[in-house]
Amino acid sequence: MPDDHRRRRQALRALLADRNADALLVTNLLNVRYLTGFTGSNAALLVATEDSEDEARTIISTDGRYLTQVAEQVPDLKAEITRAVGTRLIELAGGNGARRLGFESHVVTVDQHRAYADAAGNIELVRLPGLIEQLRMVKDEQEVALLRGACAAADAALSQLIENGGLRPGRSEREVARELEFLMLEHGADGISFETIVAAGSNSAIPHHRPTEAVLATGDFVKLDFGATLRGYHSDMTRTFVLETVADWQRDVYELVARAQAAGRAALRPGAAVAEVDAAARDLIDAAGHGDLFLHGLGHGVGLEIHEAPGIGKAATGTLLSGAVVTVEPGVYFSGRGGVRIEDTLVVRDEGPELLTLTSKELTVV
Amino acid sequence: MPDDHRRRRQALRALLADRNADALLVTNLLNVRYLTGFTGSNAALLVATEDSEDEARTIISTDGRYLTQVAEQVPDLKAEITRAVGTRLIELAGGNGARRLGFESHVVTVDQHRAYADAAGNIELVRLPGLIEQLRMVKDEQEVALLRGACAAADAALSQLIENGGLRPGRSEREVARELEFLMLEHGADGISFETIVAAGSNSAIPHHRPTEAVLATGDFVKLDFGATLRGYHSDMTRTFVLETVADWQRDVYELVARAQAAGRAALRPGAAVAEVDAAARDLIDAAGHGDLFLHGLGHGVGLEIHEAPGIGKAATGTLLSGAVVTVEPGVYFSGRGGVRIEDTLVVRDEGPELLTLTSKELTVV
Repeated sequence: MPDDHRRRRQALRALLADRNADALLVTNLLNVRYLTGFTGSNAALLVATEDSEDEARTIISTDGRYLTQVAEQVPDLKAEITRAVGTRLIELAGGNGARRLGFESHVVTVDQHRAYADAAGNIELVRLPGLIEQLRMVKDEQEVALLRGACAAADAALSQLIENGGLRPGRSEREVARELEFLMLEHGADGISFETIVAAGSNSAIPHHRPTEAVLATGDFVKLDFGATLRGYHSDMTRTFVLETVADWQRDVYELVARAQAAGRAALRPGAAVAEVDAAARDLIDAAGHGDLFLHGLGHGVGLEIHEAPGIGKAATGTLLSGAVVTVEPGVYFSGRGGVRIEDTLVVRDEGPELLTLTSKELTVV
Repeated sequence: MPDDHRRRRQALRALLADRNADALLVTNLLNVRYLTGFTGSNAALLVATEDSEDEARTIISTDGRYLTQVAEQVPDLKAEITRAVGTRLIELAGGNGARRLGFESHVVTVDQHRAYADAAGNIELVRLPGLIEQLRMVKDEQEVALLRGACAAADAALSQLIENGGLRPGRSEREVARELEFLMLEHGADGISFETIVAAGSNSAIPHHRPTEAVLATGDFVKLDFGATLRGYHSDMTRTFVLETVADWQRDVYELVARAQAAGRAALRPGAAVAEVDAAARDLIDAAGHGDLFLHGLGHGVGLEIHEAPGIGKAATGTLLSGAVVTVEPGVYFSGRGGVRIEDTLVVRDEGPELLTLTSKELTVV
């Protein structure tokens, strides 16, 4: 792990050199974690653009609560212990001769910036938003392994839920959600990625329905959208089942969404425009006359956050990079009747996408 | 509920008038929720200082995903549907003649502020940090009822955990944490307040230990720090048990912490300096010669956030207000051996503090 972190810091230094910055003050805690492995709730990191082999001018700062933890998690960097992590690192940057110091203007608040400007004195503070988020789009194999593990916990939990008879008429959406979350933890997850969606019957037509006391009934669509976390990395998967008997209209909409989802997955190639990936799935739903019932984008990046770059939607810009991890999740929702969404998490690779969520996507009657 | 929200907005208007602001742009989502009841993930609120009886110039903004939800949750305000919630409300404020517009400089980022300044044109943007957080310190009875409910779910879960024999030698910390969280949901919680702490044996000496596969053993201290959420409000409670047999040193440290905690609770009076509340508990631990083992502040406010104002610590400033809801949680930690923390959530009231966490604090051997 320390090698991964050092490699990521090195990649950041190349971006900083391009922008003529002497250093970057990193204050987004997820970015600090990405670059160092530190998981405490108060920290900042100073990454010097030019540094020695032992990175003597790259410094992490946190407060006294994390004295032991920072030594264990970040043995390879100097740690500065203080409450005022940001302003202290600005002073140290000045002491090291920094004249142009980048900061994360997309997360630093106006009030923090005032304090930083006071501490900076003659150092010029330069807005450098999103540099690390840009690096984070492409996952290294260490990260893919954690994402794979998170997806495996979700797969195993869903499989056991079905095996337990957990999806049956008479159970409430909330009961199903609770059992699914419990099973993810039983199967090795550290936590859940987001509030689990269990939506039965007409509720399945609401894209982001929160579980209620509504009861599952024969003939319902049951839509499950859920994920596990593992060491900070998130999985994301949606499956839609049918309870006991399936009607023709349900079979039709399911097959349509499954075909659109397969087309979206097939379009995941390095270099592909994200808007074209969206179109690959959306065109099939449009052609079936249901374009107005697919209300959201096709997918999004996933990693240390459940939603991160790149967004995959109709109006999104940019192209896919090899190593990006994204979701593909078309849906068609008939208001008042029911809806279907099918979602996987995948790695974009030169040799074709690698599926991380392995649960079957065949229409399943439980 | 709409009446509560309207009353809170009215209280905010008095603060805005004091500061000669024509309106406040509220972008902290918790503050939007506090003032309107809206729970979506993208929103801003414009509160006009001078407004008509029907609050025609006070406007909530959110995007199309929440069209139905905002109509249901905020029936009493005009809703502006757009993605760019902040800049659109600034434009509308200008149309209504606002010349000095306050913004939440403690949450608005440097990049957002740039976009706001562009949208503002001739309107002066005024830094007004923390106004609503100041109001949120004093809870109304609607809020106290939700906090009481959240605390009741935590009490019931712990009681059932003990009844189930959930604390016994051979179980791992993680198993206990999972069961406790599951039981809170079973007892009506919407979610958990924060990652549950279960710390056994020498781990109990680590103030914020994360549950591991470490196994509970006879003679261990077992420290549980956990909470439930109910409609956005958080409970917070710590209890420390002893497993099967109790040693003299354990009885001594437990009684010391319990006495300090009782003294801290007794010091909760409207008008009391928070540093004196901290001292009321800390002095007893100091007098016993263990001042250096009580490593953190005595407590903190709790409400829509698990940690909010006021902080109660040695160096904290300010006084307690009637209606504040705070924790009192002294601890003494013997590194390598074990530690005790006892924590309640209470309402500060003129007639003496009201206890919301009702689980017994007697030394309990399970």
